[in-house]
Order: sequence, then structure tokens, then C-alpha cells
Amino acid sequence: MPVLRHFPLSAGSRFVRLVCAEYGVTLELAEETPWVRSDDFLELNPAGTLPVFIDDNEAVIAGAAIIAEYLLETRGERLGEQQSLLSADPVERAETRRLVSWFLDKMDAEVASYLVNEKVYKRRLAPSEGGGAPDAAAIRAARANIRYHMRYIGYLSARRDGLAGRDISLADLAAAAVLSVVDYMGEVPWEEDAGAKAWYARIKSRPSFRALLADQVRGLPAATHYADLDF
Amino acid sequence: MPVLRHFPLSAGSRFVRLVCAEYGVTLELAEETPWVRSDDFLELNPAGTLPVFIDDNEAVIAGAAIIAEYLLETRGERLGEQQSLLSADPVERAETRRLVSWFLDKMDAEVASYLVNEKVYKRRLAPSEGGGAPDAAAIRAARANIRYHMRYIGYLSARRDGLAGRDISLADLAAAAVLSVVDYMGEVPWEEDAGAKAWYARIKSRPSFRALLADQVRGLPAATHYADLDF
Repeated sequence: MPVLRHFPLSAGSRFVRLVCAEYGVTLELAEETPWVRSDDFLELNPAGTLPVFIDDNEAVIAGAAIIAEYLLETRGERLGEQQSLLSADPVERAETRRLVSWFLDKMDAEVASYLVNEKVYKRRLAPSEGGGAPDAAAIRAARANIRYHMRYIGYLSARRDGLAGRDISLADLAAAAVLSVVDYMGEVPWEEDAGAKAWYARIKSRPSFRALLADQVRGLPAATHYADLDF
Repeated sequence: MPVLRHFPLSAGSRFVRLVCAEYGVTLELAEETPWVRSDDFLELNPAGTLPVFIDDNEAVIAGAAIIAEYLLETRGERLGEQQSLLSADPVERAETRRLVSWFLDKMDAEVASYLVNEKVYKRRLAPSEGGGAPDAAAIRAARANIRYHMRYIGYLSARRDGLAGRDISLADLAAAAVLSVVDYMGEVPWEEDAGAKAWYARIKSRPSFRALLADQVRGLPAATHYADLDF
């Protein structure tokens, strides 16, 4: 069985779990502590980032978007166009990839990573390692930034069924993965954009999402509405 | 003719110019000023980053690695495996993509962007916009960081002919694009790693590299050895 080195509140890790669930790939989850980087982990991925996917043939694939392309090439293409999560059209493929990067790189950095860093990592680190009380300015920045990301999701979902095109694609799973991390912490202002909320409700109802909704992080219970499909 | 919105010292822009030259795609270059973001440009790429590729059919493709995949799908695959710059093997493809991101995201951010920001952008901005004298600490950081990137290129090139596998691939072009920006500014410590130097000499001699070696940036002449194939 393939292994995913992951962390429950890593958006990239959640994205890969969603892609695997959509493709019917059962994973063994191995939890990492992203605030401590072991030499063993850096050998798998010199960049030190999560997630890392270790396939049955022992191939080591690092980086959320790259793992998704790999899963598509080794599993998804067998499932045919309907379930491929990446269109066959080069322009739509590029738009999907742009949005995957937009959500997993930009939105994650501007919103989810700030919150996880301040609310989770800093509690677990000693003061000498950068631990301590949350930085109110960082949390305020994340709370401001999420509003324009919500409006962008609303804008995209009003134009077309999937965020990157006619069908649901890797772009929808990437956006939902980041949002789900923020929602776990109770930090999504759902009143900001009705379109974004309706879109998320749709993605959240997919069977592939179930395992994420059962996640619990030690010392940080999920927001009360987190697993609720009618939030 | 496709248009590339670019900047001569943007590593991602150089990477796309190399991929186009390898595939025989002639480009019209439209220079952007990355330190000023126009609304017109943000409409093309909301992330505000260079480069942006506008194809003959008016498709707008943003982001260096994403443009490369698009070029591969629309031009490269016609050229067959030998010239495809991305192996057909999913594991080698993933390794190539990991390294493209390593060089264009990580090495660029840790080395080239620091130097271009301090030596080029800050000279052209008013003090109220963040312009001013170069920050010596940032330049020192870039000069320290490039050493481990040189050693990593040396390590990869000792194991195999291309950085990501048997043949030259997108990974080699990405690494060379970043190095060429740093070399333009005379900031590559070539004595650091003989293997990295030999590898760069090999890539620099390719016909696809010629146009980069003729680049000149207003107010910042290239280092004297920059265009020299025997440096």
C-alpha cells in the first residue's frame, strides 16, 4: 500500500488525500511533525516540505502538485476522461495547474500557513525554537487575506461548474483542501461570499471528503460545524 | 507569433525562452517592469508573476513551469521522446518536476531574487515605494545560499548526465536559467564546485542558450565573462 508522509493540517497533504480518494487509491498515512525536520525526512525530500508519497514500487514523490500529476499518470488516466481531474485540453490543463498553484502556494501561504503556524506549531515549540504565544498581527493578516480568496472562489464558481472548467478538477480539490484546514480552525468567514459557500458545500459532500472530516488534531479540536455538511 | 511577457533577469522568463528555443518556437518578447504591476498585467495573471505566455490562439498561460508543460503538450510531444525535455516515465517526470520547482521556486527565491531585488529593482523605485541602497544583509544571504545550490547541482550532475535523469530535461534548463541570472550579475562563485561548472559549460554551449547570452539590462552591464563559453 502506498504511504503518505503527511500532517493533518497541511493543505497539500489534504489535497493528495482527496486525489487518492477520488482515484480509489488506499493510503497508509504516516504523520510527520512539520515543525521538526529529521534527516530521514530530508533524504526523502530535500526541500523539507509535506507531503511525500511513497509508492508500492518505493518511488518517492515529493510535493503536492507533483504527486497529483504522478497519480494522474499512474492511476487517473486509466479511469478515463470523466474521472481524470485534469482535462485533455492543454489550455484547460494550464488553467487547472495555475489554480492548483494559486490555492496550494499562494492561498495556503497567505491564509492557512499563518494560522497553523500561530495556533499549532508555536504552541509545540520551545521559545528558543520560535515557539510562544500566537502573533496577533499574523492572525489578523490571515483573516484579511481569506476574504479576497473567498471572493475569488465565488467569482470562479459563478462562471463555470468546476473552478477551472466544466468539470470538477484538481483545482477544486486544491481550493477545498486549503479551505478545509482554515475551516477546521473555525476561521472561514462563510458570510463573505454565498457562491463560495455553495461551491464548498458541494465539494464537501463528495465521498472523497469523508476521511478529512473525521480528522482530529491533538490539542486542537475541530470547530463545531467542521464536519457538518449543512453548515 | 506567441508573445512572452518577460523580464531579462527573471529566471522563470529565461527558462521559458530556453524551452521555446529547444522546441523551435519563435517568440515575440514584450518586456515588463516587474517592480510595477499594471492592472492590465494582473488581468493576464492575477498572481502578478512573470512570465506570461500568450499563444497564437490568444490562450494566456501564466507561470514558468506551467508554460513549460503547455509547450510540451502543444509542441514538444510532436518532437518525440528524444527532444521532449520530460521523460515518458512517471517517476522520472516527477523527479524532473521536483527539480524544476527546486530551482525556479527555491533557488530563485534564496539567491537570484534577492540579488535582482537589491541590485536592480531598488535602484528603480522611489524611496516611498521601497527603493534605495542595496541591503548588504540580503546580498550576503544570497552569496551564502548559492554555495549549497552549486554543490547540489554538482552532486546531481555527478550521478547522471542530466540533472533529473539520463537526458537533458526541463530540470537542466531551470537550473541554468537561475544560474544565468546570477552569473549576469557576476555573483556565481565558480570555484565552489567543479562539477557544477562543467555541467553549466555544457548547457551554456547549446544553441538554445545564445539569445540569453546576448541580453543586456539597461544600467546594469553583464559581468565580463557572462557570454564567454570558456569562463
